Amino acid sequence: MKLIVTEDYEEMSRFASSHLLGFMMKTRRVNLAIVSGRTPARTYEHLAAAVGDKPCYSHVHYYNTDEVAFRGESREGVTISHLRHLYLSPAKIAETNIHKLTEDNYTDYDRLLLQDGGLDLVMIGLGADSHFCGNMPGLTHFNQKTVRYPIAGELVGAIATSEMDGDISRVPDHYVTMGTMSVMAAKNLLLLVNGSGKAQALKQVVEGAVCEQHPASVLKLHPSLTIIADKAAASELTPEGIAYFCQ
Amino acid sequence: MKLIVTEDYEEMSRFASSHLLGFMMKTRRVNLAIVSGRTPARTYEHLAAAVGDKPCYSHVHYYNTDEVAFRGESREGVTISHLRHLYLSPAKIAETNIHKLTEDNYTDYDRLLLQDGGLDLVMIGLGADSHFCGNMPGLTHFNQKTVRYPIAGELVGAIATSEMDGDISRVPDHYVTMGTMSVMAAKNLLLLVNGSGKAQALKQVVEGAVCEQHPASVLKLHPSLTIIADKAAASELTPEGIAYFCQ
Amino acid sequence: MKLIVTEDYEEMSRFASSHLLGFMMKTRRVNLAIVSGRTPARTYEHLAAAVGDKPCYSHVHYYNTDEVAFRGESREGVTISHLRHLYLSPAKIAETNIHKLTEDNYTDYDRLLLQDGGLDLVMIGLGADSHFCGNMPGLTHFNQKTVRYPIAGELVGAIATSEMDGDISRVPDHYVTMGTMSVMAAKNLLLLVNGSGKAQALKQVVEGAVCEQHPASVLKLHPSLTIIADKAAASELTPEGIAYFCQ
Amino acid sequence: MKLIVTEDYEEMSRFASSHLLGFMMKTRRVNLAIVSGRTPARTYEHLAAAVGDKPCYSHVHYYNTDEVAFRGESREGVTISHLRHLYLSPAKIAETNIHKLTEDNYTDYDRLLLQDGGLDLVMIGLGADSHFCGNMPGLTHFNQKTVRYPIAGELVGAIATSEMDGDISRVPDHYVTMGTMSVMAAKNLLLLVNGSGKAQALKQVVEGAVCEQHPASVLKLHPSLTIIADKAAASELTPEGIAYFCQ
Repeated sequence: MKLIVTEDYEEMSRFASSHLLGFMMKTRRVNLAIVSGRTPARTYEHLAAAVGDKPCYSHVHYYNTDEVAFRGESREGVTISHLRHLYLSPAKIAETNIHKLTEDNYTDYDRLLLQDGGLDLVMIGLGADSHFCGNMPGLTHFNQKTVRYPIAGELVGAIATSEMDGDISRVPDHYVTMGTMSVMAAKNLLLLVNGSGKAQALKQVVEGAVCEQHPASVLKLHPSLTIIADKAAASELTPEGIAYFCQ
Repeated sequence: MKLIVTEDYEEMSRFASSHLLGFMMKTRRVNLAIVSGRTPARTYEHLAAAVGDKPCYSHVHYYNTDEVAFRGESREGVTISHLRHLYLSPAKIAETNIHKLTEDNYTDYDRLLLQDGGLDLVMIGLGADSHFCGNMPGLTHFNQKTVRYPIAGELVGAIATSEMDGDISRVPDHYVTMGTMSVMAAKNLLLLVNGSGKAQALKQVVEGAVCEQHPASVLKLHPSLTIIADKAAASELTPEGIAYFCQ
Repeated sequence: MKLIVTEDYEEMSRFASSHLLGFMMKTRRVNLAIVSGRTPARTYEHLAAAVGDKPCYSHVHYYNTDEVAFRGESREGVTISHLRHLYLSPAKIAETNIHKLTEDNYTDYDRLLLQDGGLDLVMIGLGADSHFCGNMPGLTHFNQKTVRYPIAGELVGAIATSEMDGDISRVPDHYVTMGTMSVMAAKNLLLLVNGSGKAQALKQVVEGAVCEQHPASVLKLHPSLTIIADKAAASELTPEGIAYFCQ
Repeated sequence: MKLIVTEDYEEMSRFASSHLLGFMMKTRRVNLAIVSGRTPARTYEHLAAAVGDKPCYSHVHYYNTDEVAFRGESREGVTISHLRHLYLSPAKIAETNIHKLTEDNYTDYDRLLLQDGGLDLVMIGLGADSHFCGNMPGLTHFNQKTVRYPIAGELVGAIATSEMDGDISRVPDHYVTMGTMSVMAAKNLLLLVNGSGKAQALKQVVEGAVCEQHPASVLKLHPSLTIIADKAAASELTPEGIAYFCQ
């Protein structure tokens, strides 16, 4: 595990953008799974500015890690819509290089990823409750591949509020997400964390036990995990924990 | 995860030997961590026959994954002694290419592995109780790097019987082993399993929950785990489990 | 460059088969380009015996490196026909995993290889005249990708004799081959050489100047070239040359 | 081959810095060979600003690719002195992570690189005469590993002027450089080119024949070469050449 602590969100975003840009300079096909959310927003701005007018990134392919459909609407789902807004459109990514996880193909998604050569990198954000992608505490089992989960309880309102203009009638019954095994199967993982609200969650990821109640705690078992966290997010880490886990 | 089911122990050993030989044909330094035990014995015979008289494998370096010292004796420990007998001596491996984990260096072992470029492959056997290397049920926490454990309870007699000619006065107070994080940090894992006595343990690894009570269950989260098992060991696996986990 | 010298053709074939089998045990898609010819014939026998009845190799994809069509016949070309006979049929490779270079797609072949993730390995034989694949002395320029060459002069009779039952009316005007840049773009190269008739050519590859008159001399510039040669083929190499070039 | 054309020197430097920073975010030891010269100067400024105060890059090791000693002086050579000034000192790189090629160790340098795990990346500049590192037209043979060349003819005055305050009595009889085989043995190559004075040389590298008279022309045979060039340097490239060679 590698941990880079930055001064602030802006520096975190610049390091993350550099990491991703470094990855894209391979001479072969590169498959990236990326997430939406507030954490990577500025990273995407830097990245889109770098790659938007360059024809030399046509070998980079994009995959989303999770999706929530709009009930009864034929439009694209929440995640891919956000990704288009945050990155895919400003970076002028060709449609042929965008590969969508949806409710229709989730049972075949792991096989499709394998067929495409597997993921080179998954960029992940961290939830304050230790979730990553759609792997939530209480739902997650580490031996899952891409999976469909029910949307129930508090999640209904949360999704309605954040994604559906508060209209719960648009919230679907299920969402889909790459499970722990699917994410861990990637060659490299990049975890971005910012803000003091994530400090406890990051401490659990770095120094805590590996347990399904804290889904992101499993990420430290990956042979190539890089965490880029700002000072506020890293404020609860102990020097001993950093020295032990982050050689 | 990749699963290769062979007719029997002999075919398992030939596949494993080929896998290892294929790894060794790299043009760069190759770092292998290997285990002793009955399971890989025949694999080592095949391998030693192939590399013993060839000068072209001088870039391959060997590391042991765990060690039990002989109390009060200055001789080398149990594991490295077995590895010399099984493989290192018949394969004529130079001392400069043998890197020993001992009680004296275990706290520095993960750093040393990193300094040497990291492990390319760890070859592991599976215990009937789901242990791997020295990661035993009841002792294991998944967030451990190389660690020292007490030898107590039934383990005293077991080690005395299998390794010390039944003399418990030679059994030391502790043993050392690469922990889960240390093993998972390798680029590739190879798990060998043979015999019906391991069938339940293998079923747990492939199809079961990831939990510390079954330490080897964590291995399925590694992005490059290959399992070579004979038919007897694979006899409890379901077609559904194989199809789901072993694409 | 790595050089493995074997006792004889049989041992060369076993090492080559092991190397290839080791490669196939990856957990991700593996793209292999393979050649026909006498040199790898026994390697294919070993390999087909190992993988023929195992379902776990469905992630391995095959590509041919060159092709000669039969003039005016709709049947498959010379190379792919040989590969079916030597390996693809006995190993029961699915059609979806066979990717054919032909006169129809050669201008698009490098792009197609990139789209598929690039080649992990190209297995090559060595001509007594230092050609590899269809890169012949007198035709080869090192800056070529997949290319079409005229069949003229002695080549007409040679192809008629060896591939067309002596009937020169079946010999086409052109053949296609991956060029030097296409082959060098692979991640790993495996060169098989056997017999005293190849000893001078091998000496040129290992110890000689890099020049287009000896096309295979360029292969030593690849960062991951493994040569497996029998004693007869290696008989002209000097200890100094081996020590200098084959660390 | 991958080609990234930037607006100007500043953008070239930012892309190069990102590429290098992306490389450094690996969780394992990273071995970089770097060159001095005007071309990478601004890249090093960006890079040193990013890594200078971060403890998380202690796994990155540095190697120089060539060296000219000061005759009769015990001080460090020209290249390593420049590298200290340009990057190693401002980036606060520990001495244990600096590995020096000198006249004393050049015959052992390739073996040492192999022992350290091989180079992950070589960052190279391009001479207007198509040289790279110390591989000059007229001296270079592609089958050389690390090598010592005489300093004679025009080179004496050129080195005196640029490196020895015009004092030819300080110019030594020889210099050392990684040869073509040593550079090509790295996993990845990064070539930086800026300015119209390099436009013809870059055209030769990308579109020209591979020949020892233009040493850098060989670099296009590497399976992972990335070129970052500014518009002025790329001004002589044809669209056909870019399309053919830089997929």
